[in-house]
Amino acid sequence: MKESEFIYLQIANTIEEQIKKDVLKVGDKLPSLRTICQEKGVSLSTAQQAYFELENRGLVESRPQSGYYISFAHKHFRNIPGTSQPVVAMNTENVDDIFSAVYLNAGKADVLLSTSIIPPELLPIAKLNKAIVNATRDLPNSGINYDRYGNQKLIKQIALRSLHWGGELNANDIITTSGCMEALSFCMSSLSEKGDTIAVESPMYYGILHLAKNLGLNVLELPTNPVTGIELEALKKSLERNQIRLCLLVSNFSNPIGSCMPDEHKKEVVRLMEKHNVPLIEDDLFADLYFGNQRPTSCKTYDESGIVLWCGSVSKTLAPGYRVGWVAPGKFRGKVAQTKYCHTLYSTSITHEAVGSFLENGRYENHLRKLRQTLHRNSLQFQRAISEYFPEDTRVTRPHGGMHLWVELNKKVDTVELYNRAMKHKISIAPGRTYSLQNQYNNCLKMSFGMVWNEKIDSALKVVGKLARG
Amino acid sequence: MKESEFIYLQIANTIEEQIKKDVLKVGDKLPSLRTICQEKGVSLSTAQQAYFELENRGLVESRPQSGYYISFAHKHFRNIPGTSQPVVAMNTENVDDIFSAVYLNAGKADVLLSTSIIPPELLPIAKLNKAIVNATRDLPNSGINYDRYGNQKLIKQIALRSLHWGGELNANDIITTSGCMEALSFCMSSLSEKGDTIAVESPMYYGILHLAKNLGLNVLELPTNPVTGIELEALKKSLERNQIRLCLLVSNFSNPIGSCMPDEHKKEVVRLMEKHNVPLIEDDLFADLYFGNQRPTSCKTYDESGIVLWCGSVSKTLAPGYRVGWVAPGKFRGKVAQTKYCHTLYSTSITHEAVGSFLENGRYENHLRKLRQTLHRNSLQFQRAISEYFPEDTRVTRPHGGMHLWVELNKKVDTVELYNRAMKHKISIAPGRTYSLQNQYNNCLKMSFGMVWNEKIDSALKVVGKLARG
Repeated sequence: MKESEFIYLQIANTIEEQIKKDVLKVGDKLPSLRTICQEKGVSLSTAQQAYFELENRGLVESRPQSGYYISFAHKHFRNIPGTSQPVVAMNTENVDDIFSAVYLNAGKADVLLSTSIIPPELLPIAKLNKAIVNATRDLPNSGINYDRYGNQKLIKQIALRSLHWGGELNANDIITTSGCMEALSFCMSSLSEKGDTIAVESPMYYGILHLAKNLGLNVLELPTNPVTGIELEALKKSLERNQIRLCLLVSNFSNPIGSCMPDEHKKEVVRLMEKHNVPLIEDDLFADLYFGNQRPTSCKTYDESGIVLWCGSVSKTLAPGYRVGWVAPGKFRGKVAQTKYCHTLYSTSITHEAVGSFLENGRYENHLRKLRQTLHRNSLQFQRAISEYFPEDTRVTRPHGGMHLWVELNKKVDTVELYNRAMKHKISIAPGRTYSLQNQYNNCLKMSFGMVWNEKIDSALKVVGKLARG
Repeated sequence: MKESEFIYLQIANTIEEQIKKDVLKVGDKLPSLRTICQEKGVSLSTAQQAYFELENRGLVESRPQSGYYISFAHKHFRNIPGTSQPVVAMNTENVDDIFSAVYLNAGKADVLLSTSIIPPELLPIAKLNKAIVNATRDLPNSGINYDRYGNQKLIKQIALRSLHWGGELNANDIITTSGCMEALSFCMSSLSEKGDTIAVESPMYYGILHLAKNLGLNVLELPTNPVTGIELEALKKSLERNQIRLCLLVSNFSNPIGSCMPDEHKKEVVRLMEKHNVPLIEDDLFADLYFGNQRPTSCKTYDESGIVLWCGSVSKTLAPGYRVGWVAPGKFRGKVAQTKYCHTLYSTSITHEAVGSFLENGRYENHLRKLRQTLHRNSLQFQRAISEYFPEDTRVTRPHGGMHLWVELNKKVDTVELYNRAMKHKISIAPGRTYSLQNQYNNCLKMSFGMVWNEKIDSALKVVGKLARG
């Protein structure tokens, strides 16, 4: 990061902290740009950048000829939902019809608040194209051959990046896959059989629920806090009852609930898994999208025995269509490698090389820095819009990373119906019901803020808010 | 095909037929080029091309100042092995150690007779690179997006090509996959559960045996004829005994035994499957590598009820590292699509588009024509070399397509030992034992002729033949 960029963000973050703590209140005038320059010893353009940033976050507004004013305060944000209390039942109810409707009709919407895919405008397409061309030049035989040992450039970079979060992975620990879902699929099918039970957070990404169902697993949905993630006590109890064969957690900025497990929780989960000898599949594909100063740790950070199978990808940050993912399966490496070999042999040589070189030359980190900033701003804009437009009793998560908000509406609101009404305005939202195999979360919805914020989205949120009021 | 090319091949094939039928014998002089020109009404260069082709096939040799002479005759080829009589047992023996040794040490060999991969010299790399660049240009957002509905260009071409073999597939029938193994994996896991039995040909490609084992299936290895494929009577009996849940056949030019089921057998198999309501997974990835005048049919050709799941890929003909495969799952389309979605979501956008456009503009057919010719010649060179160098009691298959020979040596020869001795000469062969889950085929080996034929390979075959003599 250039020093000047760093400084403007520091200034913006300090002011945001003051707004959060109510030191600066709505309507307060911010110090003049000249004052900022003098106090912080920065150039006028740096001071301006800091204020633009705050404006983009929806926290301040400029009034012509007058200066910048606080336009919003965190304390006005809606409350955070409580810990989920999922129904405990092993039989599952089919929601394929809702699911299909939502995801097949996504194309008919003008505003997509339901999809967890970063739009192309926020991705470095030209640089990726160059990386593809370079891959055909750099790979032996232009990459028509099998990627027999996994792309070594990519593997090395994943290992190097793991040093930032205490993962300390070696190249030998890592198996590349076609995206994160394939990694999860290999882990689950390597370590469980039909009829086994897998414990997960609740609400949980439907893709994982569908995969578990497809493998014939029973899914135990456990209470989850929107800030700290899975409830340790509940997990501990089911482990002690010897109920579960496998556990899968999205430890950082999960879809849809956005929680980020505190370090102490991560440590404790790993300890519990070791004690009960239950493998933990850690789906960690959102961790790089943190809004704070550094990437959170993972459960894998605290894994000394190899009980954690750590999975990731670039599908949420770079190029979903390249199908590049990975897993560090700990002590289950042999089994997972065997499963990969049996089921698909190898991954796509060219796209794996392209991502490997993209990571190698620092382009990924550059890109991520910008993307994080965009998502952080968007999250605040969404918070503000929801506070302005949605009913008072709406609860909404306040994630510190990722791209999802979990919105809990009044119990009387049926979000499948809300979805149908919103679609009449060509706005797609994701009904909460699809994030569980049980009949619950009917008054919830997920919204994704992975997009370019604009007036149209603000208007769409206004419409949904109005519809939610009944 | 250009007309002139067509004519020279016709001439070569006619002469080969005469050699086969012993009309032309070893030592006979071929008509002069001038005579051919007059008789066939062709140019001198076409006549020359025909004779070069026969020379490349190892059937004739030119003597300076004298002309062309028959140097070899089919009747001298070694006998074809009999129908396999596989051990019927459900327990499996582990051959992972042999398997690992053979496949991990392949890189240490100078001459690879074990691998079923077309070498880069025989693949159109420059044109494929161009197709990749075009794909980043033609795809929306340069292919960074998910390939949500499967590449439509590719799907259309697969459907069009199916008209040549009576498949009559529509775009809607086809699901794209990351190579053929993934297609097989989706089919198997969609239609069977741990403990079910799957019937296959024997010997059978180890990848499929490993996959079945990985899914917890019992594998019933059935007697197979090197010319006509699986023995219908044996298949019928196991169907009547209600023993099998699923059947998997490589109907055309299978690895390793190279058989090609006659149309009547294909019809009958489909009838049996329908009668007993047992799905047939047809692994048809070698069919385009026919040596004759046209592609053989598939079982799918005769499938009216949708009981056949027809799988293919370009991994054996074009670009294994692109991971492009497909399946037409018949009436099981919904299940297989669901399995794909759950396990890996989508395939790699760019490489699928590249292959789609490669097929679309006719480059694939051009390439295949050359590749088939090379493989046909190689198969005859291998036949000749084995007849010259291997013990008299050696039996070897005479495939009409594909790239594999199945060699049956004297019962006393242990081909794992032979493998070890050959590796001392840096020659890699594939021991027969790895093509079964039972303890059998210990005196057999598979050789692949997917390569550029040269003196070094001839010498390698000489060495292996000598070692086989003891």
